Amino acid sequence: MTRPGQDTAWSLGVHGGAGVNRGEALLPDHRAAIRSGLETALTAGARVLEGGGSSVDAVEAAVRCLEDSPWFNAGRGSVFNARGEIELEASIMEGRTLAAGAVAGLRGIRNPVTLARRVMERSPHVFLHGEGAIAFATAEGLETADADWFWTEHRWKAFERARGIAQASAPQPGEHGTVGAVALDTAGNLAAATSTGGLTNKWLGRIGDTPIIGAGCYASNAACAVSCTGQGEYFIRATIARDIAALIEYGGQDAQTAARLAIEQRLAKIGGEGGAVVVDRSGTIAFAFNTEVMLRGKVSRDSPSRVGIHLADLC
Amino acid sequence: MTRPGQDTAWSLGVHGGAGVNRGEALLPDHRAAIRSGLETALTAGARVLEGGGSSVDAVEAAVRCLEDSPWFNAGRGSVFNARGEIELEASIMEGRTLAAGAVAGLRGIRNPVTLARRVMERSPHVFLHGEGAIAFATAEGLETADADWFWTEHRWKAFERARGIAQASAPQPGEHGTVGAVALDTAGNLAAATSTGGLTNKWLGRIGDTPIIGAGCYASNAACAVSCTGQGEYFIRATIARDIAALIEYGGQDAQTAARLAIEQRLAKIGGEGGAVVVDRSGTIAFAFNTEVMLRGKVSRDSPSRVGIHLADLC
Repeated sequence: MTRPGQDTAWSLGVHGGAGVNRGEALLPDHRAAIRSGLETALTAGARVLEGGGSSVDAVEAAVRCLEDSPWFNAGRGSVFNARGEIELEASIMEGRTLAAGAVAGLRGIRNPVTLARRVMERSPHVFLHGEGAIAFATAEGLETADADWFWTEHRWKAFERARGIAQASAPQPGEHGTVGAVALDTAGNLAAATSTGGLTNKWLGRIGDTPIIGAGCYASNAACAVSCTGQGEYFIRATIARDIAALIEYGGQDAQTAARLAIEQRLAKIGGEGGAVVVDRSGTIAFAFNTEVMLRGKVSRDSPSRVGIHLADLC
Repeated sequence: MTRPGQDTAWSLGVHGGAGVNRGEALLPDHRAAIRSGLETALTAGARVLEGGGSSVDAVEAAVRCLEDSPWFNAGRGSVFNARGEIELEASIMEGRTLAAGAVAGLRGIRNPVTLARRVMERSPHVFLHGEGAIAFATAEGLETADADWFWTEHRWKAFERARGIAQASAPQPGEHGTVGAVALDTAGNLAAATSTGGLTNKWLGRIGDTPIIGAGCYASNAACAVSCTGQGEYFIRATIARDIAALIEYGGQDAQTAARLAIEQRLAKIGGEGGAVVVDRSGTIAFAFNTEVMLRGKVSRDSPSRVGIHLADLC
């Protein structure tokens, strides 16, 4: 609800993964599909925020679009683990209350981000895995999807390539990716959401940074909202999402500087690659990444939507 | 290895859980068993540190003792989930490199902290769950244990009480608990480890703060090492372990003030209860908790071991 005299600024940032070797995804028709997918997500989230809806509703709406697209590594179009199966992860967090929900080891649920939100709002827990998470999704009546829905030819080929190179060993560059969104709503509340299929050829049961509050997702009205993408193991060790917020909250940095310090120094120092999108309390959207590309977009009350892929793209 | 002229200070802090309603555990013979268990853990860790061993070796040794004792909620003596089963969690982190390992949804592995360390040192991942974690433990030849080893009468009674009160609903006070250790070694490196059976009557697949780097466990030579215990959902949302380190690293606080601010303000503000043990780069051990009791102990090169249970206990 907006009232006269209230600051009704809102803004939304999204990402669709970062990487160093996305040659395949960057063929012209894939590039067009990615741009279109990011635009669709921005439109869905902006519609919520323009109407005075909450940042939590907006990030969920944007991430659902990216999960439903076969071109991003989340929901439909997710990568395959070392057994040739898909195990999904997602998280969501609300900056006003620090409420959070997360899921991992998930199979057959169409929109993991929506399950993460149900965990946040309708369970006594924050983080549910596998069989227990699926049982809760069933009890909540969430939409399921079969293996055909999730399966894509380009991910299967990537899996076959990865298996040929190295059986269940360290991931190959470019074979990761994650989607996410951050938002400021007209009530001044921040939220973040992140969703992924993880890493191609990951071990069964591997959990990445996506469902880890403080690693791949974080939101606090005291600082900012953050969603990350990249080599999850490094994001966990460097607690990147919380680090960006702490640099703002305790270190007095602005959002762009905090994101840059966390990615270009803290993450890079331990050898990690990836990126983050941040929105602060004023609605400023910041991106930082140390990879060749980061699929990203932003929109606000005052600026039309804009999407970018390469570093040089204005976004 | 210590060299002449090098600062050979070392210190170790341990905890065995915090709670508000540990009436059962505080009968005189239980109290004696808890004190003895904490002393055993301190002795095991101190032996490593005195001999010039690493802080990672020390926290692993201390936590293994607490896992093997039936009186703490970790390894043997763990609580039961809503299905009457035991699902174990653990994590370990090295402050020099930010290397980390974590496991959850674990069954039948005697020392989860040792598996977390193997994940850190011998897998391409940071966090493994359930079947995948157990397969890795088997490949690594880790010691297994059967249900009889883990089962204790007092935990089963607690489970039956919890089921009578509320089927798979919010946890009851006192039915949580975790063990952990933090250390500074003579080379100046910090480490932390945490291990737990989680929450009595927790949902299948519930993951708490224990295996979450930045929530229940964190170590960075830039700040401190932290191990937490309490209501895990709140520790995840408030990223308590990373928050304490950030208050030191970016906020300029000392370890005791940082721990107190994180527990008494940040955690308490969202309704959470529990505690943390911290060691900083100088070897100062700090405890903070907003519960009636926290089972805890410390020892250093310069001070003999000391254990405490209630707030008033000198420790």
